[in-house]
Amino acid sequence: MGTARVITLITDFGDTSGYVGVMKGVILSINPGCQIVDITHHISPQDREEAAFVLQSVYPFFPSNSVHLVVVDPGVGTDRKPIIVESGQNWFVGPDNGVFSCIFLKDQGRKVWEITNEQYYLPQVSTTFQGRDIFAPIAAHISLGVSVHVLGKELEHYLHLEGLEPERNQDGIKGRVICIDHFGNLVSNISRQLFTMVVGDKPFRIRVGGLAIHTISHTYADGRDGEVIALFGSSSQLEISLRNGNCQKFLQVAKGSEVSVHLLS
Amino acid sequence: MGTARVITLITDFGDTSGYVGVMKGVILSINPGCQIVDITHHISPQDREEAAFVLQSVYPFFPSNSVHLVVVDPGVGTDRKPIIVESGQNWFVGPDNGVFSCIFLKDQGRKVWEITNEQYYLPQVSTTFQGRDIFAPIAAHISLGVSVHVLGKELEHYLHLEGLEPERNQDGIKGRVICIDHFGNLVSNISRQLFTMVVGDKPFRIRVGGLAIHTISHTYADGRDGEVIALFGSSSQLEISLRNGNCQKFLQVAKGSEVSVHLLS
Amino acid sequence: MGTARVITLITDFGDTSGYVGVMKGVILSINPGCQIVDITHHISPQDREEAAFVLQSVYPFFPSNSVHLVVVDPGVGTDRKPIIVESGQNWFVGPDNGVFSCIFLKDQGRKVWEITNEQYYLPQVSTTFQGRDIFAPIAAHISLGVSVHVLGKELEHYLHLEGLEPERNQDGIKGRVICIDHFGNLVSNISRQLFTMVVGDKPFRIRVGGLAIHTISHTYADGRDGEVIALFGSSSQLEISLRNGNCQKFLQVAKGSEVSVHLLS
Repeated sequence: MGTARVITLITDFGDTSGYVGVMKGVILSINPGCQIVDITHHISPQDREEAAFVLQSVYPFFPSNSVHLVVVDPGVGTDRKPIIVESGQNWFVGPDNGVFSCIFLKDQGRKVWEITNEQYYLPQVSTTFQGRDIFAPIAAHISLGVSVHVLGKELEHYLHLEGLEPERNQDGIKGRVICIDHFGNLVSNISRQLFTMVVGDKPFRIRVGGLAIHTISHTYADGRDGEVIALFGSSSQLEISLRNGNCQKFLQVAKGSEVSVHLLS
Repeated sequence: MGTARVITLITDFGDTSGYVGVMKGVILSINPGCQIVDITHHISPQDREEAAFVLQSVYPFFPSNSVHLVVVDPGVGTDRKPIIVESGQNWFVGPDNGVFSCIFLKDQGRKVWEITNEQYYLPQVSTTFQGRDIFAPIAAHISLGVSVHVLGKELEHYLHLEGLEPERNQDGIKGRVICIDHFGNLVSNISRQLFTMVVGDKPFRIRVGGLAIHTISHTYADGRDGEVIALFGSSSQLEISLRNGNCQKFLQVAKGSEVSVHLLS
Repeated sequence: MGTARVITLITDFGDTSGYVGVMKGVILSINPGCQIVDITHHISPQDREEAAFVLQSVYPFFPSNSVHLVVVDPGVGTDRKPIIVESGQNWFVGPDNGVFSCIFLKDQGRKVWEITNEQYYLPQVSTTFQGRDIFAPIAAHISLGVSVHVLGKELEHYLHLEGLEPERNQDGIKGRVICIDHFGNLVSNISRQLFTMVVGDKPFRIRVGGLAIHTISHTYADGRDGEVIALFGSSSQLEISLRNGNCQKFLQVAKGSEVSVHLLS
């Protein structure tokens, strides 16, 4: 399967502690030649859904044969399994708690492996930081070309988060806000593909936070100053944005809030 | 022109989303051998002036032949042009919205190119994220040695932000706070060079946030605890600092506030 | 002594300015082949103790022959010395202000060198940013294999912070909160080793923020929802945590607050 040069990191560790740095030290001790890329360490604490969506929007833009490490792990030290997912020519390493659900949705051909070979862990495994003790060394060994057949055993049953996808109903689509970016844009779980399929050329109304929007804009600069607009953002999800402002603060809308599309005809 | 190993990033994307990570994935997919360096992703949202000043204080310390990518881009998807600036042996890539104004001020010999060759973009260009779709791949191709003559065409007219420089008047100098650092130090747009030229050996008074300061200190440890001091900071700009404290919080001064120098003789 | 590939960074610079980026530019200009790893830039402003503890928890996981750069430096520009510490096969570069105290506690065989050879500084040394002008270039030259004998001279007296270690008393152990992580976990300065030595099999009570805890948990998922638990965290320090919540916010406890262990028999 060749070797990987890139290992990416998605965690909820924030940036005030040494947790991320330690994982990088472990990886570089095993594979000094790899390139470590931070995606984000600011997933909301223990929010597996947000991790799943960020991963989905990022990994297709990396070279194939990259290893994507996701450590959002409220169950660390319990009996949830450490796993490897193989999908396309990509590798994903993390806990079996649903953080890879978006991969499962898209790729029927993926394979999942339980990590079982303790020879590839750090010599001492703690109950509180498997990111350092198991996931980081396993990712580094994958990047060196160690086979998943050596690292673990194939797994048939694993956790797939329910309810990531929006609901289709008679009215149209019932989705919700899945991430909020630094600019305050509200990213929903309604994809352009689904919207196009359901709405087509028909008139529609998007409802969010008490507002109604009747058109899809093309850029963040569309609309008048202070106007709330809807558009398909960079990952092709329906997004609600405030022209020259912070939409989250303006609408006082939280992650999880409903975003719905109603057909008017 | 040889190849560049280093690509630096300045954005206003923050660290909660995957936007920066995606750009790194695009760059590494095109030039796996380059080294990507984050300068900051915390430029105040859409603040082109702050981006210009941070860039100016940073790029001279990088190896020549580096590519500096600046994505602070409120006009993404509108008809503002994507550009490349060539200055000294450095390359700058970003939107034509003034973020390179400090380069224009300093280097009369720079050249500016409009990016036009879509062959070097990602296959699909969105209207909301040209950082990923145009700027990142163009920077990566420059780092591989692709000529600007191939990537675009020379541009004669481009945006230069007015008012970055402080005003000289009969009294002395009228400047303002241009950045505030993590310690709460207020960095002004008044350079040591201008201050020395205008003030020389004459007595002076610096006014900021209702306070008057009559001396220039040499280190942050000068003065008594809790005293507000003025000094030339690391990028040789006049800076206002609170001994052992956060000057911004103490003075309640915001970015853009006036900092003036008055000659007393 | 061979060459080092990895240079790590611990600072209190935050992420809004170009200070960290500039240091990386300086390092890469001297040693383009090294790998720079951010540990954290969010040490509390000027908190040398916190820097010392984060360093201690991180550096053992890096390849030997790494250079660890710590710039938490309230006395920059005063007469505090710039130093290099050699311990095991690791190099540490920073100010002589106690940030390396945890190394001094652990390694009686370390050597300390005052940095004196200005040939290896940047050509112009400012009084406000020696991280850029002295520490970064020195670290880069060490990573290239320049001998410490060339860079400086051995130093016999240097600052060792007092009071990093908890106090043993008749009652048991009197420690305090030394770091608080992104999840709100309170990390104390009481190590598992000391706790085991003092407490052994005897009954005990841990007191923190008005609460009493009588058992040691094994994972963050132990206990009932909303329960405050004590456990040994990833760096083997006694840690106070709130099951599925933020312990700092819940207990309203600040860094420096007392954490004590009382023997009950």
